[in-house]
Amino acid sequence: MKTAILGTGTVARTIAARLVELGHDVTIGTRDAEATLARTEVDAMGNAPFAAWSAGNPDVTVASFANAASGSELIINATNGGASLHVLALVGAENLSGKVILDLANPLDFSHGMPPTLFVKDTDSLGEQIQRAFPAARVVKSLNTLNADLMVHPDQLSESSTVFVSGNDADAKHTVTALLEDFGHRDVIDLGDITTARGTEMLLPVWLRLWGALGTPAFNFKIVR
Amino acid sequence: MKTAILGTGTVARTIAARLVELGHDVTIGTRDAEATLARTEVDAMGNAPFAAWSAGNPDVTVASFANAASGSELIINATNGGASLHVLALVGAENLSGKVILDLANPLDFSHGMPPTLFVKDTDSLGEQIQRAFPAARVVKSLNTLNADLMVHPDQLSESSTVFVSGNDADAKHTVTALLEDFGHRDVIDLGDITTARGTEMLLPVWLRLWGALGTPAFNFKIVR
Repeated sequence: MKTAILGTGTVARTIAARLVELGHDVTIGTRDAEATLARTEVDAMGNAPFAAWSAGNPDVTVASFANAASGSELIINATNGGASLHVLALVGAENLSGKVILDLANPLDFSHGMPPTLFVKDTDSLGEQIQRAFPAARVVKSLNTLNADLMVHPDQLSESSTVFVSGNDADAKHTVTALLEDFGHRDVIDLGDITTARGTEMLLPVWLRLWGALGTPAFNFKIVR
Repeated sequence: MKTAILGTGTVARTIAARLVELGHDVTIGTRDAEATLARTEVDAMGNAPFAAWSAGNPDVTVASFANAASGSELIINATNGGASLHVLALVGAENLSGKVILDLANPLDFSHGMPPTLFVKDTDSLGEQIQRAFPAARVVKSLNTLNADLMVHPDQLSESSTVFVSGNDADAKHTVTALLEDFGHRDVIDLGDITTARGTEMLLPVWLRLWGALGTPAFNFKIVR
């Protein structure tokens, strides 16, 4: 599938590499492709320079947000939650119309120190904000409840765990669920419409504290019935 | 252990019966013991009249909030979250001083319709509100992330699942953890101080939506590593 990934950080890179491995046609969208490809410094999170990563992943095209999205059927939002609406505006509503947006972002607010809080919650969610801003797109919230490695390689854990999908469009949720299964997920729970993203985004506070208590981000929620 | 349970609903009854089964000395605390024992109507949630339940559970004493708590080492808050601070004020700070309060309540706000939202979240929690209101008590938040039956009989699920403890006092968390293990819990994660109750209370929104999606409250979170 022709897929655009918005963002250039760890989540974007991890998803991009895995999609290429699975045979997808992947373009990373960024504000200024030339500037991104010229980056030789480590990023704010300590990741390898984008140029080095790109050299090791030659099958991933890099383009502007709009160009990456215009030719793609699936748009994956792997930007920071605080930047997501702005980036999607740069992509442009015309490039999102009818498309599936897989929204991985969390509405984390670091302005009050650590651990971060959520800038939208409980009576609204980032997933809903994106759906309202781009009503012709088909937003599916998923994979925001586990770390990048486990998003695409859930078999690294000792046993099967659970991921969730939230969205208004059944076909879009089927598309995303098939992708999740390709990644290796065996238990995908459809929570309902996009308002149910309130639930999965509000998992972040306990996720952050579990990271502290367990000393590793290599864990995931499993819903035991 | 001499234990007071605050509340007369399903959670209080379920915990009380299980504690008696495990050999504890249990008193249910209520506003007016005589009035509670005289109740012959089903309650707002459709539960059997308290009088009928009490007749079937003769080993559970019923007393006023203050009398139930004054002679007990462990106080279990099984009231509705919206009533918890008021009920604990009726118990009285002098009856809570030095005691372990196991807080099971969730800060659910039903005033905006279903599903409920949370009246405190993200930058504060009900567990913290209780700890601040009764600084001489030792509050441990736990078991607010699963339904009453599973709180005390987790072996009803197909496999082991996870529960959490949050609190400032290590000894109080050990007391609660031992009780959870007596109930049958095999994976108890100590998340840290009482501020980590923000994380587990914020699990409620996804819990409520999972109940809808799965069609049953008989499920629990497991943290797969």
